[in-house]
Amino acid sequence: MQALMMDRPLRLPSILEYAAQYHPDREVVDRMVEGPIHRYGYADALKRTKRIANALVGLGVKPGDRVATLAWSTHRHFELYFAVTGIGAVLHTINPRLHADQIVWVANHAEDSFLFFDNTFAGQVSELAEQMPLIKAKVAMTDRARLPAEAPKDALVYEDLVEANPPDFDWPELDERQASGLCYTSGTTGNPKGVLYSHRSTVLHAMALGLPDAFNFSARDVVMPCAQMYHANAWCTPYAAPLVGAKLVLPGRALDGASIAELIDQEGVTFLLGVPTIWVGVADHLDQTGARLTSVKTIAIGGSAPTAALVSRIEDRLGGHVRQIWGMTETSPLGVINTALPEHANEAADATLQRKLKQGRGLWGVDLRIVGPEGQELPRDGKSAGNLQVRGPWVSSAYFKNDGSAAFTDDGWFDTGDIATLDAQGYLRLTDRAKDVIKSGGEWISTLDLEEAVCSHPAVAMAAAVGVPHPKWDERPLLLVTLRPGQTADPEDLKAHVAARVAKWWTPDEVRIVESLPIGPTGKVLKRELRDQLSTPEKLRAS
Amino acid sequence: MQALMMDRPLRLPSILEYAAQYHPDREVVDRMVEGPIHRYGYADALKRTKRIANALVGLGVKPGDRVATLAWSTHRHFELYFAVTGIGAVLHTINPRLHADQIVWVANHAEDSFLFFDNTFAGQVSELAEQMPLIKAKVAMTDRARLPAEAPKDALVYEDLVEANPPDFDWPELDERQASGLCYTSGTTGNPKGVLYSHRSTVLHAMALGLPDAFNFSARDVVMPCAQMYHANAWCTPYAAPLVGAKLVLPGRALDGASIAELIDQEGVTFLLGVPTIWVGVADHLDQTGARLTSVKTIAIGGSAPTAALVSRIEDRLGGHVRQIWGMTETSPLGVINTALPEHANEAADATLQRKLKQGRGLWGVDLRIVGPEGQELPRDGKSAGNLQVRGPWVSSAYFKNDGSAAFTDDGWFDTGDIATLDAQGYLRLTDRAKDVIKSGGEWISTLDLEEAVCSHPAVAMAAAVGVPHPKWDERPLLLVTLRPGQTADPEDLKAHVAARVAKWWTPDEVRIVESLPIGPTGKVLKRELRDQLSTPEKLRAS
Repeated sequence: MQALMMDRPLRLPSILEYAAQYHPDREVVDRMVEGPIHRYGYADALKRTKRIANALVGLGVKPGDRVATLAWSTHRHFELYFAVTGIGAVLHTINPRLHADQIVWVANHAEDSFLFFDNTFAGQVSELAEQMPLIKAKVAMTDRARLPAEAPKDALVYEDLVEANPPDFDWPELDERQASGLCYTSGTTGNPKGVLYSHRSTVLHAMALGLPDAFNFSARDVVMPCAQMYHANAWCTPYAAPLVGAKLVLPGRALDGASIAELIDQEGVTFLLGVPTIWVGVADHLDQTGARLTSVKTIAIGGSAPTAALVSRIEDRLGGHVRQIWGMTETSPLGVINTALPEHANEAADATLQRKLKQGRGLWGVDLRIVGPEGQELPRDGKSAGNLQVRGPWVSSAYFKNDGSAAFTDDGWFDTGDIATLDAQGYLRLTDRAKDVIKSGGEWISTLDLEEAVCSHPAVAMAAAVGVPHPKWDERPLLLVTLRPGQTADPEDLKAHVAARVAKWWTPDEVRIVESLPIGPTGKVLKRELRDQLSTPEKLRAS
Repeated sequence: MQALMMDRPLRLPSILEYAAQYHPDREVVDRMVEGPIHRYGYADALKRTKRIANALVGLGVKPGDRVATLAWSTHRHFELYFAVTGIGAVLHTINPRLHADQIVWVANHAEDSFLFFDNTFAGQVSELAEQMPLIKAKVAMTDRARLPAEAPKDALVYEDLVEANPPDFDWPELDERQASGLCYTSGTTGNPKGVLYSHRSTVLHAMALGLPDAFNFSARDVVMPCAQMYHANAWCTPYAAPLVGAKLVLPGRALDGASIAELIDQEGVTFLLGVPTIWVGVADHLDQTGARLTSVKTIAIGGSAPTAALVSRIEDRLGGHVRQIWGMTETSPLGVINTALPEHANEAADATLQRKLKQGRGLWGVDLRIVGPEGQELPRDGKSAGNLQVRGPWVSSAYFKNDGSAAFTDDGWFDTGDIATLDAQGYLRLTDRAKDVIKSGGEWISTLDLEEAVCSHPAVAMAAAVGVPHPKWDERPLLLVTLRPGQTADPEDLKAHVAARVAKWWTPDEVRIVESLPIGPTGKVLKRELRDQLSTPEKLRAS
């Protein structure tokens, strides 16, 4: 029996329409790529978004067309989040940190037919234009006065489009399962793979993000994502903030400590999100200036796991509480979050800190399971490690053009490629990327645990554990570390430091201090490259 | 272009499955109809729910069948919320306060084929059974030892079904638009009309309820709805609480001040919801005992508008903050809620109080508009009053069997039958029920404003303003009031009290003190009955 409720599809433009009507003056603030701070209310944001929607239709953008961006976190990018999706086209947010060859590859693989770019990338777009023959129009996200000389000669100018088009637009009636966004995963193996979001998945995810045990967004919040808008849609905060009328602060290009600290202070930011290195930068800056921040309530940390020392330092210097988060481009991205349960109200400070090192617990909407080598589900005992698989209305069912189909199981789950445990309380603890696993004497050694152990040493900046072949144990861990500026350390001391913190047989046979580690476009150590270097040892020089 | 996200329908059993897995020991506590307090964790609740799901299938309940309840807010009713909907049947929660004739009417109109009832209603079910010939099986929601003698001889016993059935059950793959629940509106005009909810509408509504600016539910909350589970699903709190792992307290039958205060205190309740009279009872009780409550954070008040004096008293005696809410059975029911905006952070206490008297502001998901007599949308200026119409994914599109189709507009909105204003900040202010409107000299007089004005007098208990015919002005207001126990008042003094608070031409020609006012099954004054009585004046005796 069919129910008798209104069939109102979940559509992204409804979010900005709501914010404009009920929070017209609540601000979207950004540091423009051109330098100045820009601010306007949601009502004005909607008007400009509708002008751009008219412009897109005028340019010939059709439903389903992929419209690409090479852009930082700014108000114009925010407008495209709604204008492109609202007319039924698909917003492809290209990661500009990719190698030029990869940018061309994803643009062509996506069959992007329009490209919006920030001034930063004007020269690169000119250089690459010929290799992206499907692009029908390129739009510089600036005004005519600030258009860089190196921009393509045929580039249109964003502010010209805003001025030339009217602020009224009737959003078309889209099916909620229509594609709205396309993000390519960073792809540390093989080519990047495209994740194709729907209006439905994005709206449901934005609603879930706002819940108190997730990001806890209200109209009284000031939300600043310090993940760029090309990283899994900045965790969808540009959708989740207007859905509840929260103020949104977009940091533009500059994610250095001074720039971020300035925005937090000036805009009264309550919610921050980003990878650990961002907060190290802010803490370093505050150490130098002696300034204190007073507005921060929550710092969501994802991308890579922070150490206990880092959590303490961030909470001490920035104020607020750290909530670790885990997610992937394929999970929209929120998968789990580490929010206190009521039974944690009276726990000791050290227990709180240890708890915060777990990736977090599942929320309604994302099913999690740990699967063993024969495909059997493993117990939730905090010990049994296996492949982490997820399922839910904001999880990918396939990659674009059916690439990488092996990641999707026959019974409808996505295999994340992570190795993890789940405990009885539902806490997820990542132990490895499947492809980075070290298997020694038939048992797994957690590279993340080894890296965390050595990073708790005050001289260590970064670490990467990799497996090296061993005649008896198949593999043994090698731990590569970089040191903080001005610090020195004895490798044997570091080994002893690790040995005191992990199981005896996990202790690496060698800790090697190196000058640098290879970092990929999303800020993670490229272990595949490390392993390549190790197989040709002259490439990896001890410092 | 279709997106590539998992097609996971929004289904109600997923909520209890989530709570059982991630919050297995978080409690559902209820005061059983038989007297004792019952408590168990969500994991045990799921097991019992699955036993009942097996029992339902065994009894021959088919997808789409209507399964009725005549029941208070208890753990067994909670189990039926998930078991009945989870197997694809439709839970019809009959309001047992309806007149017996109406109970029979709605059961037959709904074509209920199964009936679950609390001991309270055992005798009534025996008496009415013959008039409900479609009912195939009746189940007493108790154990065999407590089965009342007056129960139907052929009644099954709930706990027998629990014991006889296994705790494993695979929920069927239901379409999310399948009907899950059926509630009849109280229908002050004509027959009751059925609202047929879907899994989708209920899940979306439960997610929206949890957001910080709505009910703000987290795993750290203890949620106690003091609206019965047959009143628009107790505002869907039995779904919204497990969705986030909040503890749920169901008060059973007893909504008197002492019983409610005891549960708040013993269970550490943080969130309360109910009509104003409930909180008057609790405040009276606390006045008598001198006890103080310390756990309450939020008191959501709906059903009828509280006065300023009442808001103050409730906040003072119960602790926490009042959030007024407005909704209807047809809106699942959350329509608007009165939550502070950031700009209210530094407002004066009196301004806060005045703000809290508005019904609230719209949330994402519910579109609101005010429509004039010619169907034109009226400005959001806080002054233009007209028909309140709503639209959204948790709003009815039609009544069951297409009754009352006039309430649904051709362009897809539901006409609430309320007269209201919206202001520039999005605040909804109800001024009247359309059918209760007083039109004097071509202009509307707000009966709610008149009633609120006289209720601020310390001697007044309840009030009802009705229009009486007038040769010159068409209608003029008459204000009927009841006094608090032991209080006396002069009608002319009350008239002066009102005159000081409303526009001069609104002042009623007469304030009449009466012994009682006719109250309907949902606790509201039956104005139609009042008007009938006024047209035959001997019925309405001044005290």
